[in-house]
Amino acid sequence: MSNANLLIAANTVWVVIAAILVMFMQAGFAFLEAGLTRMKNAAHIAGKNVLIFGVCSLVYWAVGFGIAFGDGNRFTGTSGFAPSVDSMLAIGKAPYSFFTTVPGAAGYLFEVVFAGVSLAIVWGAMAERAKVWVYFVFGVAFTLIYSVVSHWIWHSGGWLFGLGMQDFAGSTVVHYQGALAALAGALLLGPRIGKFEGGRGNPIPGHNIPYAVLGTIILWFGWFGFNPGSTLGVVTGDRVGFFAYVALITNLAAAAGAVSGAVTAWLVLRKPDISMMLNGVLAALVAVTAASGFVAPWAAVVIGLVSGVIAVVGVLAVERIGIDDPIGAVAVHGVSGVWGTLATGLFAVPALAATLNTGRGGFVYTGSLHQVWVQLLGLAAVGAFTFSASFACLWTMKRLWGIRVEEETETAGLDVSEHGMWGYPEFYIPVPGGYGTESHGHLLGQAHQHRPQVPPQSVEEAA
Amino acid sequence: MSNANLLIAANTVWVVIAAILVMFMQAGFAFLEAGLTRMKNAAHIAGKNVLIFGVCSLVYWAVGFGIAFGDGNRFTGTSGFAPSVDSMLAIGKAPYSFFTTVPGAAGYLFEVVFAGVSLAIVWGAMAERAKVWVYFVFGVAFTLIYSVVSHWIWHSGGWLFGLGMQDFAGSTVVHYQGALAALAGALLLGPRIGKFEGGRGNPIPGHNIPYAVLGTIILWFGWFGFNPGSTLGVVTGDRVGFFAYVALITNLAAAAGAVSGAVTAWLVLRKPDISMMLNGVLAALVAVTAASGFVAPWAAVVIGLVSGVIAVVGVLAVERIGIDDPIGAVAVHGVSGVWGTLATGLFAVPALAATLNTGRGGFVYTGSLHQVWVQLLGLAAVGAFTFSASFACLWTMKRLWGIRVEEETETAGLDVSEHGMWGYPEFYIPVPGGYGTESHGHLLGQAHQHRPQVPPQSVEEAA
Amino acid sequence: MSNANLLIAANTVWVVIAAILVMFMQAGFAFLEAGLTRMKNAAHIAGKNVLIFGVCSLVYWAVGFGIAFGDGNRFTGTSGFAPSVDSMLAIGKAPYSFFTTVPGAAGYLFEVVFAGVSLAIVWGAMAERAKVWVYFVFGVAFTLIYSVVSHWIWHSGGWLFGLGMQDFAGSTVVHYQGALAALAGALLLGPRIGKFEGGRGNPIPGHNIPYAVLGTIILWFGWFGFNPGSTLGVVTGDRVGFFAYVALITNLAAAAGAVSGAVTAWLVLRKPDISMMLNGVLAALVAVTAASGFVAPWAAVVIGLVSGVIAVVGVLAVERIGIDDPIGAVAVHGVSGVWGTLATGLFAVPALAATLNTGRGGFVYTGSLHQVWVQLLGLAAVGAFTFSASFACLWTMKRLWGIRVEEETETAGLDVSEHGMWGYPEFYIPVPGGYGTESHGHLLGQAHQHRPQVPPQSVEEAA
Repeated sequence: MSNANLLIAANTVWVVIAAILVMFMQAGFAFLEAGLTRMKNAAHIAGKNVLIFGVCSLVYWAVGFGIAFGDGNRFTGTSGFAPSVDSMLAIGKAPYSFFTTVPGAAGYLFEVVFAGVSLAIVWGAMAERAKVWVYFVFGVAFTLIYSVVSHWIWHSGGWLFGLGMQDFAGSTVVHYQGALAALAGALLLGPRIGKFEGGRGNPIPGHNIPYAVLGTIILWFGWFGFNPGSTLGVVTGDRVGFFAYVALITNLAAAAGAVSGAVTAWLVLRKPDISMMLNGVLAALVAVTAASGFVAPWAAVVIGLVSGVIAVVGVLAVERIGIDDPIGAVAVHGVSGVWGTLATGLFAVPALAATLNTGRGGFVYTGSLHQVWVQLLGLAAVGAFTFSASFACLWTMKRLWGIRVEEETETAGLDVSEHGMWGYPEFYIPVPGGYGTESHGHLLGQAHQHRPQVPPQSVEEAA
Repeated sequence: MSNANLLIAANTVWVVIAAILVMFMQAGFAFLEAGLTRMKNAAHIAGKNVLIFGVCSLVYWAVGFGIAFGDGNRFTGTSGFAPSVDSMLAIGKAPYSFFTTVPGAAGYLFEVVFAGVSLAIVWGAMAERAKVWVYFVFGVAFTLIYSVVSHWIWHSGGWLFGLGMQDFAGSTVVHYQGALAALAGALLLGPRIGKFEGGRGNPIPGHNIPYAVLGTIILWFGWFGFNPGSTLGVVTGDRVGFFAYVALITNLAAAAGAVSGAVTAWLVLRKPDISMMLNGVLAALVAVTAASGFVAPWAAVVIGLVSGVIAVVGVLAVERIGIDDPIGAVAVHGVSGVWGTLATGLFAVPALAATLNTGRGGFVYTGSLHQVWVQLLGLAAVGAFTFSASFACLWTMKRLWGIRVEEETETAGLDVSEHGMWGYPEFYIPVPGGYGTESHGHLLGQAHQHRPQVPPQSVEEAA
Repeated sequence: MSNANLLIAANTVWVVIAAILVMFMQAGFAFLEAGLTRMKNAAHIAGKNVLIFGVCSLVYWAVGFGIAFGDGNRFTGTSGFAPSVDSMLAIGKAPYSFFTTVPGAAGYLFEVVFAGVSLAIVWGAMAERAKVWVYFVFGVAFTLIYSVVSHWIWHSGGWLFGLGMQDFAGSTVVHYQGALAALAGALLLGPRIGKFEGGRGNPIPGHNIPYAVLGTIILWFGWFGFNPGSTLGVVTGDRVGFFAYVALITNLAAAAGAVSGAVTAWLVLRKPDISMMLNGVLAALVAVTAASGFVAPWAAVVIGLVSGVIAVVGVLAVERIGIDDPIGAVAVHGVSGVWGTLATGLFAVPALAATLNTGRGGFVYTGSLHQVWVQLLGLAAVGAFTFSASFACLWTMKRLWGIRVEEETETAGLDVSEHGMWGYPEFYIPVPGGYGTESHGHLLGQAHQHRPQVPPQSVEEAA
């Protein structure tokens, strides 16, 4: 076994595991989103993440991966569609010459889960009112849009990469893009029934905050694949184990975002709102995504602290301007994605930019705004392309068949209307032998016989 | 540090991590199963997975691992029981000469979690009505049955391995076996009260679909250890990082299963039922388990698409013939396990069969049904052995002490009857200071003071 | 790529992944703790884990890591505070000469998640009644206390390490310390309202046992990073892949704890209580933490079996002496942590102590109690230091500003009182378009039209 092969083997272990962690972020989004919306839509909202990741995986295999990472020109890949056995086993060969550290299969796996994350973000702002078929059709469309932009910024032949844009793991590619489509969707769908009744933003609290907590921890966990895995190997330049450094930076930013989100909510809302604190974590993770390979620990803390403020203020501001974004996708992934992309231009350590061979040192080290301008250019180009493409696509769908469910359907909930089932049926319908049925009365009788642990007085006190 | 040792170290990292991922599938089964059954049994159903994995781990250490992977004859291992420190640290030495790429401890760890998965499948069809002691006793028995078959197919000295049977990660060994025992259990237990009242299959909807979604994503996540880890190392034949390819194949099949399950349910049930879509994912993962090292990407998609149909039609068919299988284990793990085993015989790429040094190319490449016949022979042998052994064991237990709870116990729910507690006590009994007690009234009063966010009109509208 | 660098790369892959697994244990604690307490506090209890891990990560970066693993004297590290880019990328250099197998960043990452686990344990005994600011302030204080002790026992220059104390992954450092602070907190807070009303320990059942099951499985899963990752590399002494052995030992103990906890509960409480079984798993994992690199498989089983008994009897005993510990932290992490530390002194295999170059063989092999005395000395020193420091800190906080919420706040629940929101709002307040509102009535009407699956008779039977 040669050393070169051992290195590829080690790279593949790391990249595949990182991909697996990122794939698990689907559970994070499913529970974050289901937790922050209403009971009557819970099965729909959690379940559609699985379905859409399926759609995305197939489309990305057939077309997206070739667009994003197949050999091609500065604007798109032009080869590597529906890849075969051989191209997936090869390392550093056409049509995937981009992947020199791992086999093509590891490349596909690592990249498809990123597409899946970007797509998961989209639905946050469209929750509780879109038709089921929209998920299928726009899922396909967005996967293709996403793939084009990832070619621009991540492929070594892409035009923004060529200009030196720094987006280590995708504040722009993944998060900002997802938020742009989410914004288009929210604008075209309009707000949920009752959201702006009476002329102000009425809160529609999520039905299960522990779900949202679980979702957030899963996302934090998965982000250790997202950012550190973006090294695509175990050695980066001449740094052995550089991905550990990326993990450190990621964790510091997330930690700062938690504290900052909680404190900001305490100051602004007069209570340390839990969901705002969670948003602070996520906004910080989003922001540090571009920066995680480029910045120093202190800068990670600064990025996270600012993101926590962005999360709280941003979510309130989006509501203030009349956009109904149930999960806060526009603020958390969009505004914070922009912040992270710019912050990289401010804080990039010159030595790390050299290690990664991407762009230059940031403003605080070089005194030059060059890198900030490159980042801004990238944001502008992606903003124009992704928002207009997404808006055009959804607008066309809206005109042709409509993208929003009927009022009655929305009121009844998507679970029963769109899927013919309930997320928690025992709270809604009599289930044979279930809670709330005659058996339940019987079963409460049982309870009185069976529970030696609850003292009689407390039962009576409560009765 | 020699290259040979570095390779073993890298192998061990990969195999141990894969084992850890597979272990986590217990959470997937716990939440899938708890989500698809009723509230009154939720603590029992989720909790028994932990207990049973404990039983399985001990039995497999004492006996099962020796039967499955200890040196022995064509039908069983005859050594390596209750392994010592030395045999667990050794690599490629008796009594575990089978494990040449990793230390014995990594072998144990990787194999015990597979036994745990097979055992977890069993209970799906027996849910909501079996006595607690059955889990202990049949848990022991099935672990031993399972170990025998895994010796036949996976140990290089096993008779089915010798014939060239291709079951890369266990469509037959793990899933089909689990489903056979599940079927035996469902037949001997009979249906739940009310299931076939009125002569037809009355649906008993699961109480928490988001749990089932979480369970499914955890299983998909864990399957990236299950299939790719079955390479038992980072280099396979002369392919560096071949496990990444296995992961790719696994993901494509699951994705196709999600889409196919949803579409099939839409056509058959007129709604894209979420739990059917989840079954599609799982059926596809089950089917691709045998095939994942052998087939091309397009074949993975075909396998997944067919599995999605199997999941929907199979679950309905099992109910139609009068078997009450609350989780769909027989269809999803049994029928789809058979499909995957046969599909491998159809679609195996000759070059990959050569890489894995197991069997021959499949029908579509060779025009020969040889491999399909080998697969069928394996299915027949395992079907006969595992079903009859499981049935005999459960039948004896039923005769001796009974395996089904009393009607009153089943009606009240296993949580309170068998464990003396509730899964969600605040919905069933007055908990001091809990929901529904006097404090709750007090607390609702609090709510009116504390929630500035809910506009008065919406509260009144709702009242 | 030199072999030395390949080894460091492989070490870093393993250590970083192990750290990620341990980080995920925060989700385990969040769901274990939320599941075992009441609905009205669920958002607070789950959410504060995220916040506190954020606080811990920042403090540990600024100060704790330097205290624990910076170069210094026998009692504390005196360098490496707020580490820079260079020190995080370096391997085996000042101020972190301790980390010779991985870069400093991997060291930080692996150690900060351990601090986070120890801190998570603290709150278990303080659940449902502490003020929010306590989490911030004592979170900072405990992180520092913890760091000092980890220097004593784990840093090669620490005084207890020098005496040969064996605490492989922290039964003492992490679990016993957490439990000592938890005990101090429970004593200073006093019991929850109603807990000892009528002079006896009234059970206050946790609101969601499936959450507790999920939490336990996540913890078991994460423990495969916790113990095996503590090798800090893929080769230990001359054992390649020794961490796999540690994983095996960990799994066997946990399995024995599950069985033993269930059986003990069956005998003592006359029912196989699910939460007691889960406590058995956790107590076993706690106990085997110190022992996991030192003992034989049979000893792991013994350690686990005893721990299962400790979990049940310990939890009941703590309640009997009038301490209200909602999650059982004192028994599960404290008593079992002591047991595990001592058991290592009893059962350590001499050859493994030599491999780890720490202490001597245990009593059953050497006939000498030397190692047991060393372990006892360590327990005594840590007990005195951590308990008194934690008590003093919390006592001061109590005197200055109070650490317990008002009675009205506790009765209403911390979610609404401290955070201005509900964990499950639809059970408490009218949510626009939510469960229990007018829309729900409408939606139940819908349900009758939309559910073809529930047979009419069962609906009527239930009505």
